[in-house]
Amino acid sequence: MTVSPFDSEILGPLFSDGETARLFSDEHCIRVMIDVERALARAEARVGVIPEPAAAAIDQALDGFEPDLAAVGAATATSGTPVIGLIAQLKQAVGGDVAQYLHWGATSQDIVDTGLILRLRTFLDLCAARLDAVIQALARSADTHRRTVMVARTRMQPAVPTTFGLVSAGWLLPLVRHRERLAQLRPRLLVLRFGGAAGTLAALGDKGPDVARALADELGLDTPSTPWHTQRDALSECAGWLSLLSGSLGKMAQDITLLGQAEVGELRDARGGGSSTMPQKSNPVRAETIVALARSNAASLSAMHQAVIQEHARGGAGWTLEWLTLPQMSVATGAALAHALSLLDNLEIDATRMAANLSQDNGSIMAEAIVFALSEHMARDQAADLVKAASATARSQSRPLINVVRETAGVVVDWDRLGNPASYLGATDRLIDQALAAAQGDGT
Amino acid sequence: MTVSPFDSEILGPLFSDGETARLFSDEHCIRVMIDVERALARAEARVGVIPEPAAAAIDQALDGFEPDLAAVGAATATSGTPVIGLIAQLKQAVGGDVAQYLHWGATSQDIVDTGLILRLRTFLDLCAARLDAVIQALARSADTHRRTVMVARTRMQPAVPTTFGLVSAGWLLPLVRHRERLAQLRPRLLVLRFGGAAGTLAALGDKGPDVARALADELGLDTPSTPWHTQRDALSECAGWLSLLSGSLGKMAQDITLLGQAEVGELRDARGGGSSTMPQKSNPVRAETIVALARSNAASLSAMHQAVIQEHARGGAGWTLEWLTLPQMSVATGAALAHALSLLDNLEIDATRMAANLSQDNGSIMAEAIVFALSEHMARDQAADLVKAASATARSQSRPLINVVRETAGVVVDWDRLGNPASYLGATDRLIDQALAAAQGDGT
Amino acid sequence: MTVSPFDSEILGPLFSDGETARLFSDEHCIRVMIDVERALARAEARVGVIPEPAAAAIDQALDGFEPDLAAVGAATATSGTPVIGLIAQLKQAVGGDVAQYLHWGATSQDIVDTGLILRLRTFLDLCAARLDAVIQALARSADTHRRTVMVARTRMQPAVPTTFGLVSAGWLLPLVRHRERLAQLRPRLLVLRFGGAAGTLAALGDKGPDVARALADELGLDTPSTPWHTQRDALSECAGWLSLLSGSLGKMAQDITLLGQAEVGELRDARGGGSSTMPQKSNPVRAETIVALARSNAASLSAMHQAVIQEHARGGAGWTLEWLTLPQMSVATGAALAHALSLLDNLEIDATRMAANLSQDNGSIMAEAIVFALSEHMARDQAADLVKAASATARSQSRPLINVVRETAGVVVDWDRLGNPASYLGATDRLIDQALAAAQGDGT
Amino acid sequence: MTVSPFDSEILGPLFSDGETARLFSDEHCIRVMIDVERALARAEARVGVIPEPAAAAIDQALDGFEPDLAAVGAATATSGTPVIGLIAQLKQAVGGDVAQYLHWGATSQDIVDTGLILRLRTFLDLCAARLDAVIQALARSADTHRRTVMVARTRMQPAVPTTFGLVSAGWLLPLVRHRERLAQLRPRLLVLRFGGAAGTLAALGDKGPDVARALADELGLDTPSTPWHTQRDALSECAGWLSLLSGSLGKMAQDITLLGQAEVGELRDARGGGSSTMPQKSNPVRAETIVALARSNAASLSAMHQAVIQEHARGGAGWTLEWLTLPQMSVATGAALAHALSLLDNLEIDATRMAANLSQDNGSIMAEAIVFALSEHMARDQAADLVKAASATARSQSRPLINVVRETAGVVVDWDRLGNPASYLGATDRLIDQALAAAQGDGT
Repeated sequence: MTVSPFDSEILGPLFSDGETARLFSDEHCIRVMIDVERALARAEARVGVIPEPAAAAIDQALDGFEPDLAAVGAATATSGTPVIGLIAQLKQAVGGDVAQYLHWGATSQDIVDTGLILRLRTFLDLCAARLDAVIQALARSADTHRRTVMVARTRMQPAVPTTFGLVSAGWLLPLVRHRERLAQLRPRLLVLRFGGAAGTLAALGDKGPDVARALADELGLDTPSTPWHTQRDALSECAGWLSLLSGSLGKMAQDITLLGQAEVGELRDARGGGSSTMPQKSNPVRAETIVALARSNAASLSAMHQAVIQEHARGGAGWTLEWLTLPQMSVATGAALAHALSLLDNLEIDATRMAANLSQDNGSIMAEAIVFALSEHMARDQAADLVKAASATARSQSRPLINVVRETAGVVVDWDRLGNPASYLGATDRLIDQALAAAQGDGT
Repeated sequence: MTVSPFDSEILGPLFSDGETARLFSDEHCIRVMIDVERALARAEARVGVIPEPAAAAIDQALDGFEPDLAAVGAATATSGTPVIGLIAQLKQAVGGDVAQYLHWGATSQDIVDTGLILRLRTFLDLCAARLDAVIQALARSADTHRRTVMVARTRMQPAVPTTFGLVSAGWLLPLVRHRERLAQLRPRLLVLRFGGAAGTLAALGDKGPDVARALADELGLDTPSTPWHTQRDALSECAGWLSLLSGSLGKMAQDITLLGQAEVGELRDARGGGSSTMPQKSNPVRAETIVALARSNAASLSAMHQAVIQEHARGGAGWTLEWLTLPQMSVATGAALAHALSLLDNLEIDATRMAANLSQDNGSIMAEAIVFALSEHMARDQAADLVKAASATARSQSRPLINVVRETAGVVVDWDRLGNPASYLGATDRLIDQALAAAQGDGT
Repeated sequence: MTVSPFDSEILGPLFSDGETARLFSDEHCIRVMIDVERALARAEARVGVIPEPAAAAIDQALDGFEPDLAAVGAATATSGTPVIGLIAQLKQAVGGDVAQYLHWGATSQDIVDTGLILRLRTFLDLCAARLDAVIQALARSADTHRRTVMVARTRMQPAVPTTFGLVSAGWLLPLVRHRERLAQLRPRLLVLRFGGAAGTLAALGDKGPDVARALADELGLDTPSTPWHTQRDALSECAGWLSLLSGSLGKMAQDITLLGQAEVGELRDARGGGSSTMPQKSNPVRAETIVALARSNAASLSAMHQAVIQEHARGGAGWTLEWLTLPQMSVATGAALAHALSLLDNLEIDATRMAANLSQDNGSIMAEAIVFALSEHMARDQAADLVKAASATARSQSRPLINVVRETAGVVVDWDRLGNPASYLGATDRLIDQALAAAQGDGT
Repeated sequence: MTVSPFDSEILGPLFSDGETARLFSDEHCIRVMIDVERALARAEARVGVIPEPAAAAIDQALDGFEPDLAAVGAATATSGTPVIGLIAQLKQAVGGDVAQYLHWGATSQDIVDTGLILRLRTFLDLCAARLDAVIQALARSADTHRRTVMVARTRMQPAVPTTFGLVSAGWLLPLVRHRERLAQLRPRLLVLRFGGAAGTLAALGDKGPDVARALADELGLDTPSTPWHTQRDALSECAGWLSLLSGSLGKMAQDITLLGQAEVGELRDARGGGSSTMPQKSNPVRAETIVALARSNAASLSAMHQAVIQEHARGGAGWTLEWLTLPQMSVATGAALAHALSLLDNLEIDATRMAANLSQDNGSIMAEAIVFALSEHMARDQAADLVKAASATARSQSRPLINVVRETAGVVVDWDRLGNPASYLGATDRLIDQALAAAQGDGT
């Protein structure tokens, strides 16, 4: 175990992926903050707060500037944000009288938070694309496996027949709603953070809101009603979305793990992991990793919600608590999505085993079906008692439940149908249709 | 401390309120589940699944039925849900051949979950009304206190001047967004839960979806694409909303606590609590309670997200984990809203003290303003260095900062304006206007 | 779902038990606080702070006093603690000049916290007794099932043979350590809380420490170095212990659930729960409930640790956060212990099924054993490759792995032994002996 | 924000420190696992499981071996642990027939877990040393400031006088108990993890326990009763200790932040952080960071407790969840200790300001003292009512409370003493003595 598996060279390939990790690298973090400073200079020149040539000089001087990360870090240790050390270097790079116009009227948090929002925008686009791909894969599975009959399990015990298509639809629908949620939270989240020292924009005189609008325009963000230094709801909402998404993937992954147990054998990750000592092993490593990422996010989420309680106009402890939490929730979710995609791509469905499991326990999977069939000839409670007694007999004598019932019920029903789990699928087909229709929507 | 302060007679009045608590009482929980069973009978009769007279008999027999709660509880201990014991009593109440048509084709979780959704609907209406009232109170405060100048604090230290109006707007805007979020999550949450044994509705043959639609219609709920037994995202989303809402109230409450410290003295809860030994005390009990409720919700939320990972078609552990978590998050949020309303109603704003605090530390609150004023005559960095040095001098000599700067700067600026914090409020007025405009929207 | 399942009449029987619940009832909470007030009066009389006759009168007047709980609650709503309202009633009950000597020099928190400690003492005794009983049950199981061979599963897949005795020992040992931890934390936790208004005991002049010692003596508690109003470490440590304990029980319960799946069938709760619609069902309700209680505690624990951060000499928000958390963690743990005991008492072990599962997947459970046997004739890596290839062949041809290996290995080993999982149990017997020896210790 | 601030070059200097970070680096993680493999070879040779010359060759070949981290990472992505890829490289490095004796009879988790334990041992030694240093600093402060009188605050409001010495003692004592807890948990934690494929040590025939003992001996660890693959209690207990410790430091840091508010001004971090726009600012960056680290740990702890629930003989999801959690909790705690030390070293105590704050609110800090003084002449309730009324008068007339009381009480008490907060310190001196005595103990 290293400090963060996400940053580790020896663990990272399991917990992260290049695309997501890049967005949360030191280099990219700094790069985007420099972009914000450049955009701020351009915006302030447009509004007439700083001279046009100064803005142009800043913009040009910082294009491709490579900061000394260690020096930034040293300044962070004393000032509490990476911006102060960065500004010092940027001023050096810009040089001369022009340097003073850099970061004009802004505060550190403006830069850190807006930089974060810009990176989250890219990250959420990445998530949306992966989410769509998972949705497509599950929609295909739901459609393809409409008639792949299997045991539905409730409270970890066989219940009644279902299809792998309906199971897939059940994994699918939360993701469809996550797509909708993402569309709804984006406008709340992708909003400029710019308020100056304490949210009044006072250093810009009466031009603050105009600068804010121009800056938002430069960056392609919305402008908030007021600077949101200590209005952290949108970030926590975003964290909640990440955790909900990874949680839904975690539910699917846990089901895959359970269905992949040797004794169940209905699903199998074709690219399972090996063992250092047991040659026969194929471990559901990816599915387990998704569960771990989901549970990690569920715990981390509470830190983000604790961080909502920030003091006054700008708080230090709560803000920093977000730094310790949100990026790793993001990378965890990006990784969970990547694993889910790959897992579904490599998922082997063993329909034969599914069918075989339906007949275990003497066919008691049809107990409810039999009760309802008998109910056309006797009171349902009487039917239920009869089937319960027959179940016990079937177990003790190792005989098919239906045969025992047939002998004792004294009524005539369609015994062949009742012996066939595929005949007791209820509305699965219509439900799958409805799920596929929901998946067609684009959630916007 | 009693098991749950929410249920306690000696602590409850601080942690709960009658309206919310009633929704989560045993009596109401049972009452609503009986309503669901009655509606199910009516719906199944409409669709032709059970005889019309049976439905009518059930509906009538259960109208006003008073179950034996202890007997329900005894059955819960063995079966894991309160429905099995309840059904037994209801069948007894209905009697005869008709009793078998009760709960036809449903499973326990259908009843528990749908009952919960119905209660959450009422509860969220209650929240919405209280939230609106808090929004109105804060909008008034934002408008009224546009010119009530006070210290803006960042990282727990004085920063620049602001107004209590802008502070109020900062408390207000997250709540406006919570109103919007609530409108968006309602259609995802207020959805029927009805799937039969394992979500296939098989006991209803080909009439399952029609029964579902009829039942949803009876209850005024939407019909889901597929039964959501183990699709728990909407419940966790709701929990996230509760925690976000209580967190935003907690941020406001913590600010009120901080601004109410004797040494700050800018705000005061006129109905603070007394001490058992110190006669002078007025403790910010309600504000502290709101913070406690918010932090409790933030921790509980992680349990709800852990509970998303439920097994197969219906899971027992995760489902039960929700029971241990969501109701108390709801009551906590209801109580936080009630306290917030009362707190704002009784909040005394001491504008004199606010003004006095602006002049502490030799007027250093205007340091940034002075830098920007000087920047018209020298490079900003030079100005910043000059003001930093002057701050140290002002402190050691206990003299007004502005006087020290005036002597050393060697330039002419509008010193009177710089001596007046009310002159350095930037865009506060426009920002408040924007906040009030946002609060006008109804978020639907 | 009701506010707290622990307090509910319809859910409580599943989530609580009478003995534990009583300790966290309003009545008992108040009763113990009255006992503290009585003991305080006696202690102060002994030290000479208040008159002996006053103490005697207080002691007598409050013996059996029944307070008006609703009136206590009403005062809690404004003062933030139940003590102020209680004291008012007690003074009334005592009457006359003597009443003033009640609660002399104490603060509300002294009474609430010391009352809590007293109840925790009883509760931890209860836990210790139940814990011992679970330890005994598991020790018996470890000993009895030394030779009950079963599949050891790693990463949810069959690994090598083990015994149910060793599995039982693995469930047992954490509990043995919890017993040791409890013995170690008791002296830190079972300590008087008495400090007066802010921990200086100033109202008692120079007699404060003597009163503290006398009071501790009356109550059978230790005296702390300084009053611990905002030193909450011992309470959080206790919460951690509760969560660790319920977590270990949760691990066992989850294993039982997994081993009880129909497809595995090795364990079964003989008192499983039924279904409202499926007559064949036997749900592992108690095991699932234990898991839910463990996950709930794991989430709640974070609230207790957040609550460590309390302000100054006495904090309101953090203190209240404990009230919202610790009692329900206690009851959850008490219930988890009770369920665990009952679950173990009713656990059916199916040794036949265990044996049958050992031979699934063509006997690949012996793959590691075969590798090490072959390693006496070839390099281990070569042996591993050979067995890996043979595993694939065995699967595709549905033949016993050992037969395939025998044909291809070209060496002579004890094939009979390698075909018998009971021959590959390694050190299980010695390990069980060690576990039983550890369980014999009394952890003090 | 980067993925993990602990690993970041631009944020790390605020959130981590070289010594701690090194222990959780990829390089060190791998290095220690190689050490375990070497020790295993030596131990197995001693016991006669593998040939002596093989062990010697392995030991020598791996001395100083530099693995290809990227290749390790690539294998982690598929196998789920870094050991499989590492073993492949180590075998290459050892070469020939000898290579097969590497990792003989071990499983990946044996190596990962034992490696972790070894690093935690070093880390806990580091913590213990830092903890001792903080204890010493606080003991000095408690002793030095016995007579530095200041306001004791309860529920965020002034209560009665106290001393900064007693405040320091209150910060000190939980740390003393943490030292004791550490000594108690070490023997439970610093235990070998070695069980082979599934804890039976079967690959070692009857020599498993002997190898375990020899290996433990090589590494200086204890031998467990049984292999603890899924007995994770000691790791979660360790995490709880880390969170308790950082929580106690967080309480101190929050107090320092509160006492350092400009309006309070009693404490000040002489090395506070600056602002990018406000020249007068000195932000309590380190104290806020400690609070953030504490709250992060409190949330992460719940993940460690969720991870206790691991499946069967070895679980993948829960195990991995620990990887995502424990290392960063460790580094956070190491950083919190380092910050706390530095903060205390640079803490400026403003005794003048403390004295001045005692006289605010017309000297109402002595209200309780006055009540108890008057109680020698009238009933205490009467005295309390009189002082309460006088407080209101004093506030409205801005006159010293004591003067108002003197005029209205009609009794003679020692008014001079009652006007002097230093006369109402109760047992502070004796309590500090007791705290210092406790700090002297070494907790072992």
